[in-house]
Amino acid sequence: MLIVMRQDASAEQINEVVKVVTSKGCQARSIPGGDRVSIAVLFNKGPLEDAWFSDLPGVQQTIAVTRPYKLVSRETKPSGTEIRVKNVTIGSGRLTIMAGPCAVESERQAMTIAEQVKKAGGDMFRGGAFKPRTSPYSFQGLGEEGLKILAKVRETFDLPVVTEVMDLACFDLVEAYADIVQIGTRNMQNFSLLRRAGQAKKPVFLKRGMSATVDEWLMAAEYIMAEGNPDIILCERGVRTFVRHSRNTLDLSAVPVVQRESHLPVMVDPSHAAGFRDQVMPLARAAVAAGAHGIMVEVHHDPANACSDGAQSLYPAQFASLCRQVRDIEQLIENSVES
Amino acid sequence: MLIVMRQDASAEQINEVVKVVTSKGCQARSIPGGDRVSIAVLFNKGPLEDAWFSDLPGVQQTIAVTRPYKLVSRETKPSGTEIRVKNVTIGSGRLTIMAGPCAVESERQAMTIAEQVKKAGGDMFRGGAFKPRTSPYSFQGLGEEGLKILAKVRETFDLPVVTEVMDLACFDLVEAYADIVQIGTRNMQNFSLLRRAGQAKKPVFLKRGMSATVDEWLMAAEYIMAEGNPDIILCERGVRTFVRHSRNTLDLSAVPVVQRESHLPVMVDPSHAAGFRDQVMPLARAAVAAGAHGIMVEVHHDPANACSDGAQSLYPAQFASLCRQVRDIEQLIENSVES
Amino acid sequence: MLIVMRQDASAEQINEVVKVVTSKGCQARSIPGGDRVSIAVLFNKGPLEDAWFSDLPGVQQTIAVTRPYKLVSRETKPSGTEIRVKNVTIGSGRLTIMAGPCAVESERQAMTIAEQVKKAGGDMFRGGAFKPRTSPYSFQGLGEEGLKILAKVRETFDLPVVTEVMDLACFDLVEAYADIVQIGTRNMQNFSLLRRAGQAKKPVFLKRGMSATVDEWLMAAEYIMAEGNPDIILCERGVRTFVRHSRNTLDLSAVPVVQRESHLPVMVDPSHAAGFRDQVMPLARAAVAAGAHGIMVEVHHDPANACSDGAQSLYPAQFASLCRQVRDIEQLIENSVES
Amino acid sequence: MLIVMRQDASAEQINEVVKVVTSKGCQARSIPGGDRVSIAVLFNKGPLEDAWFSDLPGVQQTIAVTRPYKLVSRETKPSGTEIRVKNVTIGSGRLTIMAGPCAVESERQAMTIAEQVKKAGGDMFRGGAFKPRTSPYSFQGLGEEGLKILAKVRETFDLPVVTEVMDLACFDLVEAYADIVQIGTRNMQNFSLLRRAGQAKKPVFLKRGMSATVDEWLMAAEYIMAEGNPDIILCERGVRTFVRHSRNTLDLSAVPVVQRESHLPVMVDPSHAAGFRDQVMPLARAAVAAGAHGIMVEVHHDPANACSDGAQSLYPAQFASLCRQVRDIEQLIENSVES
Repeated sequence: MLIVMRQDASAEQINEVVKVVTSKGCQARSIPGGDRVSIAVLFNKGPLEDAWFSDLPGVQQTIAVTRPYKLVSRETKPSGTEIRVKNVTIGSGRLTIMAGPCAVESERQAMTIAEQVKKAGGDMFRGGAFKPRTSPYSFQGLGEEGLKILAKVRETFDLPVVTEVMDLACFDLVEAYADIVQIGTRNMQNFSLLRRAGQAKKPVFLKRGMSATVDEWLMAAEYIMAEGNPDIILCERGVRTFVRHSRNTLDLSAVPVVQRESHLPVMVDPSHAAGFRDQVMPLARAAVAAGAHGIMVEVHHDPANACSDGAQSLYPAQFASLCRQVRDIEQLIENSVES
Repeated sequence: MLIVMRQDASAEQINEVVKVVTSKGCQARSIPGGDRVSIAVLFNKGPLEDAWFSDLPGVQQTIAVTRPYKLVSRETKPSGTEIRVKNVTIGSGRLTIMAGPCAVESERQAMTIAEQVKKAGGDMFRGGAFKPRTSPYSFQGLGEEGLKILAKVRETFDLPVVTEVMDLACFDLVEAYADIVQIGTRNMQNFSLLRRAGQAKKPVFLKRGMSATVDEWLMAAEYIMAEGNPDIILCERGVRTFVRHSRNTLDLSAVPVVQRESHLPVMVDPSHAAGFRDQVMPLARAAVAAGAHGIMVEVHHDPANACSDGAQSLYPAQFASLCRQVRDIEQLIENSVES
Repeated sequence: MLIVMRQDASAEQINEVVKVVTSKGCQARSIPGGDRVSIAVLFNKGPLEDAWFSDLPGVQQTIAVTRPYKLVSRETKPSGTEIRVKNVTIGSGRLTIMAGPCAVESERQAMTIAEQVKKAGGDMFRGGAFKPRTSPYSFQGLGEEGLKILAKVRETFDLPVVTEVMDLACFDLVEAYADIVQIGTRNMQNFSLLRRAGQAKKPVFLKRGMSATVDEWLMAAEYIMAEGNPDIILCERGVRTFVRHSRNTLDLSAVPVVQRESHLPVMVDPSHAAGFRDQVMPLARAAVAAGAHGIMVEVHHDPANACSDGAQSLYPAQFASLCRQVRDIEQLIENSVES
Repeated sequence: MLIVMRQDASAEQINEVVKVVTSKGCQARSIPGGDRVSIAVLFNKGPLEDAWFSDLPGVQQTIAVTRPYKLVSRETKPSGTEIRVKNVTIGSGRLTIMAGPCAVESERQAMTIAEQVKKAGGDMFRGGAFKPRTSPYSFQGLGEEGLKILAKVRETFDLPVVTEVMDLACFDLVEAYADIVQIGTRNMQNFSLLRRAGQAKKPVFLKRGMSATVDEWLMAAEYIMAEGNPDIILCERGVRTFVRHSRNTLDLSAVPVVQRESHLPVMVDPSHAAGFRDQVMPLARAAVAAGAHGIMVEVHHDPANACSDGAQSLYPAQFASLCRQVRDIEQLIENSVES
């Protein structure tokens, strides 16, 4: 931490700050500048609180320097994490495509879509059994019945399944059925759920919160990893901004930033970012071109009658075309990096 | 819902839309305009999905018209809800002041602060026993021990207590000790927690999510009320914006908007909006001047050594001065409304 | 500036950074911490560019420390600036109320409203002669005819007038007629206009840009002051956020922050923040309670037929009530500060 | 426009609204719904003001339906606009790459970079002669000398040049030298400048404002086109959000949305969105994958000594690699659309 003093700070005030720094078990180093003095706080053991210093006489500002995350940091582990789920490896060279409906609505619906996903070259199947909905009057998911349908999809099509866990109460159940457990955007800072996910035996798919900074997102992953689960996949899904022509604003800068700061794989969900079908294909291609390790896309064979998110679901034929396009882009980027 | 057709939409396309509207059990009424036709969807029973119509040929846009909330709406219940907690009534004419530390750190700390809060004229005591923290390495609260200290505060100073519940696992415990159960900003769309709160016997203090619209916030309250609990206090606490000089941006327009749309009382937390002590008093006064039913403020006798949020906690003397100021502003607004 | 090195930065890399700092005419001081070294850049003459250092091997991050503004800074001039315009002094103890229609529409309209503004106790009259409108097809203002009407208002009612200048072409004209020249939110970073305003003989009313940080806003004022004009009034008018229930989100934290950072007076425009009449009174009271030096409010005797901004204009009777309320709040705050 | 009435609106109130609609020269059509009546306003000649209706008794809300733009709308002109500048056609099938330094610093600098841009396959050269800078103390550009250097670049390398115009005063000069006149993000709603650009004989490169909606951006283009200049290139360059890891947040959804709503070509500037070099390549590839008609990229042979924006400028070798990559992606998308 750097403590910036006011121009008119007195020697006594500077000494007092140094004394408080020392009392917190850190070392203080005073740095005289052109028009003001700053004091560096060094060798701190744990996190420093602004409040310890910001109120002392003569202090203008405190500036955090250290990154708050440790286990998920690339400085801690320089090589990228690869996560193996059956025959799929996320974070390896090959792009991972997860696809399926927003919600599992029936066995027939799930099987119909899964067949198309498999045929088009999708790697994993997604589908919600427990649905977080803004309105209590909207379809809330099939619950365990939905999980059983997912299990059938897995067996029939040899597709690992990703599904969301909404709370502590249903965690054991979801963990038992899912190949990857998803934590949704509204639960990114549900710290109890993160801790439980850290004790799970399955990889965790952690969506970025609707207005989370990358630091907060990585700290959410740190919660999981601190409990012992190293298999975390991050997923950018758009953030909330003033923009109204899309449901959220996809923040593709987050892809290279996460890849620089952390060893964890990072995927992109263009469907929830877009909110409208005609933006999903451009954003999905863009995500892969930006270097994401994979994409998660909503597909529905009859979006006009979907129970949720129909407006942003691709038709199976669009999804097949998308798969071809993103595999090509992936190939191209790989080649250009190698050359 | 209004379905706006493209300028070049054909009669067949318009008919097709009308047919789909009818198939969903609603009535369609076509409205010819200067350069395009719109179709109103009428007499719908439940929520309408954009996706049912947005993809039909010739459709340019769908526009939602109906408000999504029902039970919490002022159209449903025109008179304002008053919530009685022991000798305090929230939502009545008199401003409610809740104050205390961010976290309960020890009995001595809580009792010291509570004494000051009582003396200054605070109505209720706040203090966290379970703390949602961005970092897993930060102080996480005293848990049940903290709740017991809160109970002692209540007995000693005759101050009802508000404390946060973080998850389903600790809900029973918190409900047993607290006079009002708080749901924090990160849990505003933790729908399982909202449902549980709807079954609670205690009033719920529902903070606005960090980037929630008023509609989403009221829908979160609708979740609680739909389960049978009518006693909900809404609390604006700042939203996340591009602004960096405060921790969040306090959205005071939300106060009159919520008061127009809903019958529920709405309070303001200036401490979490500000993030810095020197902004708390101006924002607290502003909140009361804007017509809030109450304020929740962080107070600490030794903020430089607080376990959390020290930088935004008022000193007891500042809090006493604030109480005088906001009571005066309250009086003044009441008089001006009457006159 | 502080240059934070990576954990694995070598001694050579650190030396190289020190060399570059020196080559830029500054002094470098290396600060060894627990897990990484930082380098402070000291005694710089002008602004430092991140790019000079951010790309050197081993560098993790550069952090700006110094404030970018000088002339407008309270560190440069500790006492608050007071701006005298005829019989009104902005920035003194007494709250300044500027009011009038969005646009001057006719002599009759302006005189009717001005009479009400005067009667209610308004200090200055506002009204646009040149209007920046989102659509080229909307009413663009009366131009010089509008300025002449403003002059008549001033003579008749002894009210100084504030009006907006949109470009270099009309600056001389506006400067000749206005008592205070307003620079609108869309022009806050129109640097040519700012320079011209810096050469004006009239005070400048500088609205905050729609998404400007306080630093950028103060730098815009610095442009004006650097050209020789010390008379600048800052005006917060809401910033653009994800929020949809108001036209903009009023950022009242900006009031105490500007007052701490700068010696310039800061006013608030609740009308443009709100966008809807029923939010204007609560926000205006809040602004004064937050400590603003004044408010600028839109008033219209016939808002339903206003050429622009009718939905946010107060009726004269509402304005009169508002004046009474904010004068009372002002008094109250003054007393509480004194006591 | 749709006027939504309150549930409890009386027949008299509804009649009154209908009367006001008629008095404005429009037709009213009342639409009875399940729990409330709405009134459609039809056959309006010009823009409708909310304020005409929003304040009438019984009115709950007014909802705009019509798009505000006309000339730039794809409904007006279904085929995409192609803009020919010497041997380059923007908006045709082929991707346009504009590149060069942020600012022209010297003849030697410009010629060195231009040679690299040409060699790598860039189509046009960019470089600022008049620079809008946040600080009055930063480098402000070489002015006319810079324009002369740009002319020399054009002659020597057969590269058309794009350069920014900051105000009315320098417009003639910039228009005389430039092949395309750029209007920067801070001037997107400088309506006087837009009108002047509408009278120019050169195409206009219109950057999106820092917090502009797509509607406002297209209305800015409408200003230009309404004055007679049909040659407008739109450029997305990131918008301001809460995100701090990049200078702005690139809004790639804007690309398909603009292409659906307007016939004008839309390019992307990844450099200003990113703010950091290591994000520029991923974002540039993403922009092309999203379907942009071109990209504008900052390149500098010695970014560590650039007068501005060094941190986000690519090295020439990086730019050459980028050109290869984006040309490949372009090819690939074209093929996939054809197939």
